[in-house]
Amino acid sequence: MNSNNVRFNEEGLVPAIVQDVRTGDVLMLAYMNEESLQKTIETGETWFFSRSRKELWNKGATSGNRQTVKQLDIDCDQDTILIQVESAGPACHLGTATCFTRESNDDLRRQRTIVQEVAKQIEKRKQS
Amino acid sequence: MNSNNVRFNEEGLVPAIVQDVRTGDVLMLAYMNEESLQKTIETGETWFFSRSRKELWNKGATSGNRQTVKQLDIDCDQDTILIQVESAGPACHLGTATCFTRESNDDLRRQRTIVQEVAKQIEKRKQS
Repeated sequence: MNSNNVRFNEEGLVPAIVQDVRTGDVLMLAYMNEESLQKTIETGETWFFSRSRKELWNKGATSGNRQTVKQLDIDCDQDTILIQVESAGPACHLGTATCFTRESNDDLRRQRTIVQEVAKQIEKRKQS
Repeated sequence: MNSNNVRFNEEGLVPAIVQDVRTGDVLMLAYMNEESLQKTIETGETWFFSRSRKELWNKGATSGNRQTVKQLDIDCDQDTILIQVESAGPACHLGTATCFTRESNDDLRRQRTIVQEVAKQIEKRKQS
């Protein structure tokens, strides 16, 4: 993906949905300006633009919970980015796995995670 | 969820991520104002606010590809909604399953879908 394809809004921002590549869980939504998108593409880690602090931030720079970019896509009208990542730890600053955590959601998440673990085991056995 | 908990932006909108409840695929991102969020909660179908046409729209009213709401959540800072749905058809107006379709993404999607199908079969056999 190239940042030239992206339609930034009047504030120069585009929403970026961050999804766990393995489980499919939606981890968070944050905003990127052109510079943070460039840095994300160049470094392979997520960089966003903080609307409150008016500055770039590298997810996990403080907490260690970095996100490694596995896939970067743009939607059909080029104004939303979807980033699939491997996350080194919880995505939310509150310490929960995702920013959308609540109990009933955890059940869905747990189901998908178990299913992924089973799939990984099957894949491993096939290869050994 | 209650629309009182939501922090709408200065245009009175909040981004809503729509996710397939079964596969975990991110289908689309659209915007809601308070009225469309209320209608979504009341009807159990997704309603959005079109920023270009400045009007409410009920997803699938024209195409038939309605989205039935299974779960509605808000993120930690209350400015993004995550809606898990069952979709009657393709989410994208281009006829593709999601608005983020491209080939490499399809591979990830196919893997998750196969895994879900296997899990469903196992569940069925357990129950019979």
